[in-house]
Amino acid sequence: MAVLGMPTAPWRDRLGLWIESSIPRNFIIALIVINAALLGLQTSETVVAAVGDWMRLANTLIVAVFVVEILIKLIAWGPRFFRNGWNVFDFLIVAVSLVPDSAGLSVLRALRILRVLRLLSTVGHLRVVTESLLKAIPGIGWIGLLLLIVFYVFGVMGTELFGDAFPRQFGNVGASMYSLFQIMTLEGWSEDIARPVMDVYPYAWVYFIVFILMSSFTVLNLFIGIIVNSMQELHWTEEEAKQSEREEKARLERERMLRLIEELHAKVDRMERR
Amino acid sequence: MAVLGMPTAPWRDRLGLWIESSIPRNFIIALIVINAALLGLQTSETVVAAVGDWMRLANTLIVAVFVVEILIKLIAWGPRFFRNGWNVFDFLIVAVSLVPDSAGLSVLRALRILRVLRLLSTVGHLRVVTESLLKAIPGIGWIGLLLLIVFYVFGVMGTELFGDAFPRQFGNVGASMYSLFQIMTLEGWSEDIARPVMDVYPYAWVYFIVFILMSSFTVLNLFIGIIVNSMQELHWTEEEAKQSEREEKARLERERMLRLIEELHAKVDRMERR
Amino acid sequence: MAVLGMPTAPWRDRLGLWIESSIPRNFIIALIVINAALLGLQTSETVVAAVGDWMRLANTLIVAVFVVEILIKLIAWGPRFFRNGWNVFDFLIVAVSLVPDSAGLSVLRALRILRVLRLLSTVGHLRVVTESLLKAIPGIGWIGLLLLIVFYVFGVMGTELFGDAFPRQFGNVGASMYSLFQIMTLEGWSEDIARPVMDVYPYAWVYFIVFILMSSFTVLNLFIGIIVNSMQELHWTEEEAKQSEREEKARLERERMLRLIEELHAKVDRMERR
Amino acid sequence: MAVLGMPTAPWRDRLGLWIESSIPRNFIIALIVINAALLGLQTSETVVAAVGDWMRLANTLIVAVFVVEILIKLIAWGPRFFRNGWNVFDFLIVAVSLVPDSAGLSVLRALRILRVLRLLSTVGHLRVVTESLLKAIPGIGWIGLLLLIVFYVFGVMGTELFGDAFPRQFGNVGASMYSLFQIMTLEGWSEDIARPVMDVYPYAWVYFIVFILMSSFTVLNLFIGIIVNSMQELHWTEEEAKQSEREEKARLERERMLRLIEELHAKVDRMERR
Repeated sequence: MAVLGMPTAPWRDRLGLWIESSIPRNFIIALIVINAALLGLQTSETVVAAVGDWMRLANTLIVAVFVVEILIKLIAWGPRFFRNGWNVFDFLIVAVSLVPDSAGLSVLRALRILRVLRLLSTVGHLRVVTESLLKAIPGIGWIGLLLLIVFYVFGVMGTELFGDAFPRQFGNVGASMYSLFQIMTLEGWSEDIARPVMDVYPYAWVYFIVFILMSSFTVLNLFIGIIVNSMQELHWTEEEAKQSEREEKARLERERMLRLIEELHAKVDRMERR
Repeated sequence: MAVLGMPTAPWRDRLGLWIESSIPRNFIIALIVINAALLGLQTSETVVAAVGDWMRLANTLIVAVFVVEILIKLIAWGPRFFRNGWNVFDFLIVAVSLVPDSAGLSVLRALRILRVLRLLSTVGHLRVVTESLLKAIPGIGWIGLLLLIVFYVFGVMGTELFGDAFPRQFGNVGASMYSLFQIMTLEGWSEDIARPVMDVYPYAWVYFIVFILMSSFTVLNLFIGIIVNSMQELHWTEEEAKQSEREEKARLERERMLRLIEELHAKVDRMERR
Repeated sequence: MAVLGMPTAPWRDRLGLWIESSIPRNFIIALIVINAALLGLQTSETVVAAVGDWMRLANTLIVAVFVVEILIKLIAWGPRFFRNGWNVFDFLIVAVSLVPDSAGLSVLRALRILRVLRLLSTVGHLRVVTESLLKAIPGIGWIGLLLLIVFYVFGVMGTELFGDAFPRQFGNVGASMYSLFQIMTLEGWSEDIARPVMDVYPYAWVYFIVFILMSSFTVLNLFIGIIVNSMQELHWTEEEAKQSEREEKARLERERMLRLIEELHAKVDRMERR
Repeated sequence: MAVLGMPTAPWRDRLGLWIESSIPRNFIIALIVINAALLGLQTSETVVAAVGDWMRLANTLIVAVFVVEILIKLIAWGPRFFRNGWNVFDFLIVAVSLVPDSAGLSVLRALRILRVLRLLSTVGHLRVVTESLLKAIPGIGWIGLLLLIVFYVFGVMGTELFGDAFPRQFGNVGASMYSLFQIMTLEGWSEDIARPVMDVYPYAWVYFIVFILMSSFTVLNLFIGIIVNSMQELHWTEEEAKQSEREEKARLERERMLRLIEELHAKVDRMERR
């Protein structure tokens, strides 16, 4: 990476290579795991009462090391640091960690555990797996938008039809869309939602069954899209490679044959002319 | 399209091309999205109380534009307009919008939000996705009929067996089939339906477990049908094309070789005869 | 079929062909559908009170026609009739219909609706679909036995561990296996079964989570087996046929080339010897 | 197996072959099935009261036979016995059976039924099916770890956010992870967990919906991995074998052609030189 872009001092390149080498990387991974365990233990009030101060200190130290790591990478790579999505991810997670606990909301404190997600960017295999998962998302694009439109249409319709009688489930468009998400997962759709609604509006089953059929059919196709994609890719890479190698060999042999036959022609022609 | 069928005036062709061009199309898409937002806001009583009159006016204007759009298309294409399924879809949705709010039932008012589905016909990508989803439906045909027969048989049987004791779940064939649909989705099938029934009829588990096994097996095969179909299609188009191109090339080379060898034969024959 | 086996009188062959031809077959299909509708209507007490006698009469007539149909087939084909599984299926269903209503249990009366399943054997397309579904079952064989063993092991274990405290769910091996089936379908497994059990035996979550992981993994593999099977079959028939046709052609061309080259050798040898 | 490793006495080899032959193997299978039935019957207190002593005796005898079988295999194969995973599995199960009932906990008594799992190692087909299932597990590896990280992150977060108000569901990290497993299976996630939590923390739906989307997407990809794997393997073995056989034949024919043409060149060269 250091080769591209503006020239950099060689010591910065060396620094960048060192921080990515196995010893500092494994040290960081160990710190993330320790940090995960500490944050897990901190949910227990008895543990916090006993050794809470030590744990806070350990956490502060670990965050400090993370900050130093990011700073080293920033120095080594300069602005190119932010071209890589994983670096941005690491940067944001460490930045959130710097917000002081006392200042933040309890939600922000709960977000500290997101630091554990740095494992995804730091452990090579997890990075590969995560990237392959993320690659499947763009394929969802348009079919996901279609699903969203179906949700919105049924959400507005449900609010207008059942909103007055069932404010908890269909009180506003947001509540309706949450209920539709629940219905799509088939959780309690009948006993907790459809049957009570049908006691008031006997024909409501049309609404629910049409929505279940449409949403599950769309989700099924979304899944099929992902399955087909990942199946084709694997096919391509492995089978294709072997196959095209064999066919390349066959092509070369055919070409050699053709050349030899043409040379024969030339020779026979020469003989005839003699 | 204008080339086929009866001759049309050139200005009508131009009108048809213009209304399908990107500027009017994007304008219509924007109006649909605005309309969707307005219809969503109209579900909130506080919003309606504050600016309800303005929103009704905006809605009326938007519907007017939709009517004009359909009229332009009708003028441009004449009766051929109705040959395209999407045009019929647009026409029906706009026609429903013209039913006056006061005259209709509250259900009809709730159907106004279906206008948002015009996005499916107007946005190119969504149209493609929707068409590919619809294409999967005919393949369901016979296996869907099989599922319906299974539902009907179990519905009648359930009504006869459990109808008297459980009128809510199995009171008539319709109620039974609704309950069977719920059982097929596995929602509360045991705690809310099978266990209470089994308290009265201890052997009822045979009915429920046989139905679950049969319906889920059938639905699984229905899904497999869709998966296999969409997988084969993709295979065909891409891999097949490459493969047959390569094989066509190999065939041509073999033919050329054959011709050259036959010519050699002829030459050698001539030499022999000399 | 009449050609195989012992010689038959020609009029019996003609009778067999006639009963399978489209007019009597469609007549039978129509009767099955009418019978299905009648049996559905008979679940409504008001309908039975009004026109119950007429419906009973119609049912009796339809069953009489079914009996005549089966007799004709028996006469036409003799003992070979029972070699076809579908014929046995039809025979059993019609035989059950002959048990008098008054004599039988209410369960037997409920089984009358199974006559509708004769549609599966009589309508050609449904027959094909059903056969393709049934063909998938043998492939389940051993993995199904594995699942059964897992059920039995967990059933006995659950009865011993939780039977005393939860007689409804785990009172005996049968009750436990029903509960495990419910857990496998994930219906209310936690709120209605696992959480109450965990209130008494805190470590019971091991039992439930291990069972869910094992059973869903096994069922997943059972499904994969079915998917892979039906995918391969389709692949074979279509793609394979095309491919082997092309390769047969290539092989013939290569053979012809070889022969021509060998003949050239012979000619050149003759010229050399001259 | 006896050929490899240190030399063994021939009678030990013969003993090893005999214990694996069909008669003793089928005898063991019969004993396992009888033992399974006895252990199932022992869950019924009335049966135990009537013939409990006889059953205990039968169980003791069966375990004795199992011990003798393992001893024979140990004598026949020596330390190589433990190189096979299935042997270790059998050894452990029989070893657990030797712990006296009175000494053990009731949990240990419940584990006796695990002996039935010896069917998996003893019946050839079940062994093959089990091995093919187990082969799919390593492929889960990294994506399983990813899922575990997601569980831990959401577990700690849920404990911090909702732990005080909902001790039953989110009281500590373990309870939270159990609840998340329940949510992942979609069982009662909304009515029993998310809706009550949302009554206290209105924005909790973000937590639940993000978790459901992430976990189900990850599990879907885990399943796809397994499907793709088992599909590829089958493809490889069957189609590949046929294909490469045909291509090998084509390659040989091409090579023979090339040789013949080269010989022709040589001959024509000789003729020219004459």
